[in-house]
Amino acid sequence: MRAVIFDLDGTLVDTVYAHTLAWQRVLHEAGIPIQGWKIHRLIGISGGLLTKAAAHEIGRDLADAEAERLQKRHGEVYRDLLPERRPLPGAVELLRYLQKAGIRHGIATSGRREDVKQSLAALATPEDLVVVDRGDVERAKPEPDLFLACQDKLGVKPEECYVVGDAVWDLLAARRASMLGVGVLTGGYGEQELAQAGAYRVYRDAAELLSSIYQLGLRAA
Amino acid sequence: MRAVIFDLDGTLVDTVYAHTLAWQRVLHEAGIPIQGWKIHRLIGISGGLLTKAAAHEIGRDLADAEAERLQKRHGEVYRDLLPERRPLPGAVELLRYLQKAGIRHGIATSGRREDVKQSLAALATPEDLVVVDRGDVERAKPEPDLFLACQDKLGVKPEECYVVGDAVWDLLAARRASMLGVGVLTGGYGEQELAQAGAYRVYRDAAELLSSIYQLGLRAA
Repeated sequence: MRAVIFDLDGTLVDTVYAHTLAWQRVLHEAGIPIQGWKIHRLIGISGGLLTKAAAHEIGRDLADAEAERLQKRHGEVYRDLLPERRPLPGAVELLRYLQKAGIRHGIATSGRREDVKQSLAALATPEDLVVVDRGDVERAKPEPDLFLACQDKLGVKPEECYVVGDAVWDLLAARRASMLGVGVLTGGYGEQELAQAGAYRVYRDAAELLSSIYQLGLRAA
Repeated sequence: MRAVIFDLDGTLVDTVYAHTLAWQRVLHEAGIPIQGWKIHRLIGISGGLLTKAAAHEIGRDLADAEAERLQKRHGEVYRDLLPERRPLPGAVELLRYLQKAGIRHGIATSGRREDVKQSLAALATPEDLVVVDRGDVERAKPEPDLFLACQDKLGVKPEECYVVGDAVWDLLAARRASMLGVGVLTGGYGEQELAQAGAYRVYRDAAELLSSIYQLGLRAA
């Protein structure tokens, strides 16, 4: 294996619970009363799909313009709920280790540029880190496009890539991209849910992944 | 089986994600940087124990006075994040069904009276519903005291009681009280986590429990 592609929210930065509560508030405002645990399980897919999935739950169709409006509103509420970003344990150290070891790696996220920038700043990532976000592809997760775009930039084959993520959407998209998924518990899913979705291994967090990295058989470029 | 004892937060009302984010904010303010997913897994135990468990994670001891102060602060932040309470699907209907069917039931929660009152209002529970809260016992969950106090008021034996809850703490306390635990997914735990903690069955939510209630073999008093 030659490369590692990381999800961002819930995998490297601790943002899932603020995203969940922000969506819950925005969807309730819009007359879409969805429970917290269901929203939690939708975090990680594209915002447009999330709004449509939530509306579908209560038998409603959502126009594209309304879905777009809700995403803007979510961005506002989310920034209000969580003004600062916090790296998850081991996230900074894991990225630094891969860089030092010469192992190709990048970030592929359903998040939007403005929001992604803040998280990268919290992680103190180098300028030249390969990052693919919502704006770079037509369709975000659970489509494989983000991971394939990242792999392409890294110059490796899909079969040589690990995808590290906290959500079943990462694991689904990884399978569709012919990559090997690795789960982390920092997004709040249970271990079994991630294993069942196809995670080759599940680690507690990036710190445990770093201490166990020889289990992944990674080679430098 | 003669009686059903319900947990409140995450089981009958949709409050877990607001509790999680509120605790995360309060603990960070206090210099205890705990990740969201870990706090999520602590929701349901007494507030005092939660603050001490979080501090322990980073190798700190917390004085009782500080733990008490953090709980007060949590109450403020929580009310600010979630001013309104929402019943979870089927919660109101399930309580109403048990009442009509003459099956004894009550609520046993680690929450404090002031907060519990708001949730009961949202559930439109009758005045004479048996409710045991934090103030009624010396030690809240995962100690069995809340469930035992509730069972005592219901006038049944522990072995005749189901405990319905969303967290592993409910299931642990149920086992310690010699009661049979039933899990619901509305608190955001994975099904396997609840089954592993001893849930005899896991239902999606109160609505599914209500539609499957004959599986529990309950008898009227």
